Amino acid sequence: MKVIVDLCVVPIGVGVSVSKYVAECQKVLQEAGLEHQLHAYGTNIEGEWDAVFAAIKRCHQRVHAMGAPRITTSIKVGTRTDRDQTMQDKIDSVTNGNL
Amino acid sequence: MKVIVDLCVVPIGVGVSVSKYVAECQKVLQEAGLEHQLHAYGTNIEGEWDAVFAAIKRCHQRVHAMGAPRITTSIKVGTRTDRDQTMQDKIDSVTNGNL
Amino acid sequence: MKVIVDLCVVPIGVGVSVSKYVAECQKVLQEAGLEHQLHAYGTNIEGEWDAVFAAIKRCHQRVHAMGAPRITTSIKVGTRTDRDQTMQDKIDSVTNGNL
Amino acid sequence: MKVIVDLCVVPIGVGVSVSKYVAECQKVLQEAGLEHQLHAYGTNIEGEWDAVFAAIKRCHQRVHAMGAPRITTSIKVGTRTDRDQTMQDKIDSVTNGNL
Repeated sequence: MKVIVDLCVVPIGVGVSVSKYVAECQKVLQEAGLEHQLHAYGTNIEGEWDAVFAAIKRCHQRVHAMGAPRITTSIKVGTRTDRDQTMQDKIDSVTNGNL
Repeated sequence: MKVIVDLCVVPIGVGVSVSKYVAECQKVLQEAGLEHQLHAYGTNIEGEWDAVFAAIKRCHQRVHAMGAPRITTSIKVGTRTDRDQTMQDKIDSVTNGNL
Repeated sequence: MKVIVDLCVVPIGVGVSVSKYVAECQKVLQEAGLEHQLHAYGTNIEGEWDAVFAAIKRCHQRVHAMGAPRITTSIKVGTRTDRDQTMQDKIDSVTNGNL
Repeated sequence: MKVIVDLCVVPIGVGVSVSKYVAECQKVLQEAGLEHQLHAYGTNIEGEWDAVFAAIKRCHQRVHAMGAPRITTSIKVGTRTDRDQTMQDKIDSVTNGNL
């Protein structure tokens, strides 16, 4: 089952700057070979369900290992059975009037 | 790794009433033996990471099998390494002034 | 326009325990006279759009005033024009098989 | 109070394709003169609290007016008092190692 995911990992108890933890999660996604795109409030990810969620679990493990005692993460997950759709397709369908 | 999750599954393309799909997800959580509590905008779930996310995947599979061509799901995931905490503990810490 | 909202306010940069800030937000909702129900990963709120979002803004103001330098909040907002629905109706439609 | 928001509007009861509703929300943000950036699972918005939330309310009104009987929207809202930060700053802080 293919998924398009939006991921936002928030470490708690490490002070006000969280960007080094977010950068580490980018590394995890990179290592997993998953298509991903950072935006200003999260990261879009595309891939097979199990691969994507295994990577999200590794993000939590890695961020805890960096010293964050607590993490709250928001995930949006989209799946569809009617047709294949990439992250770029979703953007094109809105911007190109391909409705 | 223990997680507390908030899950909100939204089937798309099945009309305006989605409650039978949500009820099916409750059944999936029940069958998985996971502690869970329905509220007005989702379901709180408590358990081990792998068990909880396996159940969420089954929710998607089951809701697609019921005929929904598209699903968008919101998940919040909390993990912590500083101490054990249940769903009830979280509520108590706010309501009992156990801050 | 009536809304049912799920609100989760996360103060950042105040250490690992955030429950006193959540308790303050409960007070804000109480003072606003809004129907609300705390759960393990947020608070359900019911009311008119403007009243509910004015209260959410006050939550941010109050939590910053308590000393939190940064806040990240998740909100789910439901509106419908086909019929009136309360928070309890939503729960009943799932649990009572009133689908 | 300045906010950075992530907005994802999901019309329910209008079939499986929702992109024309999302395109209409882009128009609302454009008309409001708000800085915004579409991604594969939502739209980042930057502006003053009141202007941003007025625009989000108009999105709901406009999408209902287009015929959607039900809408469920996810919003993430970030505010901070320690310093000014733009959407681009947030991306740069992760990608440029400006941690």
